[in-house]
Amino acid sequence: MNPAAPLSSPDIVPDLLERSRALVTPALRLAVDRLAPPMDTVAAYHFGWIDAEGQPSEGDSGKAVRPALALLSAEAAGADPAVGVPGAVAVELVHNFSLLHDDLMDGDEQRRHRDTVWKVHGPSQAILVGDALFGLASEIILEGTDANAVRAARRLAVASRKLIDGQAQDIAFEHREQVTVDECLAMEANKTGALLACAASIGAVLGGADDRTADALESYGRHLGLAFQAVDDLLGVWGDPNSTGKLTWSDLRQRKKSLPVVAAMAAEGPAARRLTALLTADAKKSQQEFEDFDEGEFAARAELIEEAGGRRWTADEARRQYDIAVGALADVPLPGPTRNELVALADFVVVRSK
Amino acid sequence: MNPAAPLSSPDIVPDLLERSRALVTPALRLAVDRLAPPMDTVAAYHFGWIDAEGQPSEGDSGKAVRPALALLSAEAAGADPAVGVPGAVAVELVHNFSLLHDDLMDGDEQRRHRDTVWKVHGPSQAILVGDALFGLASEIILEGTDANAVRAARRLAVASRKLIDGQAQDIAFEHREQVTVDECLAMEANKTGALLACAASIGAVLGGADDRTADALESYGRHLGLAFQAVDDLLGVWGDPNSTGKLTWSDLRQRKKSLPVVAAMAAEGPAARRLTALLTADAKKSQQEFEDFDEGEFAARAELIEEAGGRRWTADEARRQYDIAVGALADVPLPGPTRNELVALADFVVVRSK
Repeated sequence: MNPAAPLSSPDIVPDLLERSRALVTPALRLAVDRLAPPMDTVAAYHFGWIDAEGQPSEGDSGKAVRPALALLSAEAAGADPAVGVPGAVAVELVHNFSLLHDDLMDGDEQRRHRDTVWKVHGPSQAILVGDALFGLASEIILEGTDANAVRAARRLAVASRKLIDGQAQDIAFEHREQVTVDECLAMEANKTGALLACAASIGAVLGGADDRTADALESYGRHLGLAFQAVDDLLGVWGDPNSTGKLTWSDLRQRKKSLPVVAAMAAEGPAARRLTALLTADAKKSQQEFEDFDEGEFAARAELIEEAGGRRWTADEARRQYDIAVGALADVPLPGPTRNELVALADFVVVRSK
Repeated sequence: MNPAAPLSSPDIVPDLLERSRALVTPALRLAVDRLAPPMDTVAAYHFGWIDAEGQPSEGDSGKAVRPALALLSAEAAGADPAVGVPGAVAVELVHNFSLLHDDLMDGDEQRRHRDTVWKVHGPSQAILVGDALFGLASEIILEGTDANAVRAARRLAVASRKLIDGQAQDIAFEHREQVTVDECLAMEANKTGALLACAASIGAVLGGADDRTADALESYGRHLGLAFQAVDDLLGVWGDPNSTGKLTWSDLRQRKKSLPVVAAMAAEGPAARRLTALLTADAKKSQQEFEDFDEGEFAARAELIEEAGGRRWTADEARRQYDIAVGALADVPLPGPTRNELVALADFVVVRSK
């Protein structure tokens, strides 16, 4: 195996995601139906099932990478993918809880090319519906009656805490002058890695896998999460607004200390020094001063990050994490087709930047 | 038994609460210590363990009625109170999660005579630390290794969903012109009753009680919660700011459709009609128009509520719910001292208005 080259064609991924959505969405909708009005409607808007006027919609409800991972992980344990459905629903609920709260905290007005929940329904609904989805995740997973459901619930609880820790660190970094690359990677392992690790192992746990298999799948998911986040960090600075659905230089507008930024600040040379001087001053500015910046100010920062090597370093890091993720799959016996699909999903995540 | 008169002297309650705090607080602090900085500090501020400057504090961390109920409920099942500690910690974490988010959504600047978390540490920290405490509750309760811990975790998840549903309804009612007394009671059964019901039964569940005992304790807790909320609704309109730590007419300032308000609006006669006309117009006002009201406007509304009978009705309702709560304890065999303490706690909750 040569983990430096894609092992599998990513063109099987759309079908895989579609199959996962077909299995998981009905169960997810049944779960959301338990919420009291008006939260059920607000949640349905968030998931893209209805529009802002309450009419049925074929909106984009996200790529559903996490549900696909949960079902594949059940298959990895030799179980039917349906065994992974409660895990897929629970992970998707936790993921969407975090999106609802993060969009509010970050002031993001758009997600998946639509207005965010706090923008349409107000901050209180974003908080409440987020809380409700988070609670529902425990409720759903604990409805399983065997010991595997309890193991899965424990792992989900720990992953959720790490996810929240990661978001707290991400926000704290915005106002810190210096953040090391290691601190940023630790934050991203929490913010993105922990829930993907849970998604990639929860189906196996529900299917009765031993700890060794579950841990290997968890390691695959964690490093896939780090690869995913590195790509996301690149898109956060250089992404095309037409495809990301966000503003240009979106992470720079929020003073995110993302990987390209901290890697560039840690570099040597004049570009790194000029960038560090600018960002150190930025950290002390008020949000208003910052919002008054013109586009050129962000463009200048993006150029310095690239010149100092932050863009290249992050792209290499995405690849490095991809390699570790795929390598982790070699540690345990897996059904051949499942292994191929897990690798294809990893390819899909890493080539997303193209 | 005559449930119309207090069955037990409430003067045993301070000692009971003190004993509960001594058992539960160390475990609660260990749980909170798991949070990543800066959330651990923010949570410690919220619980009154440190002040806004981070110095150790002997602040008021609340009455701890819920932890006391959880420990008593373990004793009700014939178990050692220590068996109820994880349940007490989990319930207290869920309760404080809801306080952190509710204070932010309601714009409340003071709690327990101190600035609220969103006021001191900002809205993002209030959201994040609330999320973290909510997640921690599942994590703690699921660390129990037997089937009773899983039963307890399931009940806590359902109670948490009801709590969030209740808060969503409470907020939705602020902008509705008409809310019936039954709708208000259903909202309060969710918002306050569900978690008190869980607190009053979780220790028994952890102690291996049968469903009949757990259900009777749950019923006691739910109706105690409704009595507690009726008293709270009275304090929300007529409470003395020096003892509530809130502004005068606090619920009226937020357009809460609390029990005295909806009972008065449902009454007959000129005061009810004048009140209804005023509040119907209020529901359409912007928050700014509303905040420009002078004190006299709120005083006039409070007087109309009283004149229409809303204050009297709510005081009677508190008593009625107290009677049902105490009556539920008669349905199951309980150790004598435990029954006395449960009744004393109910007395304490209802006489709080004096």
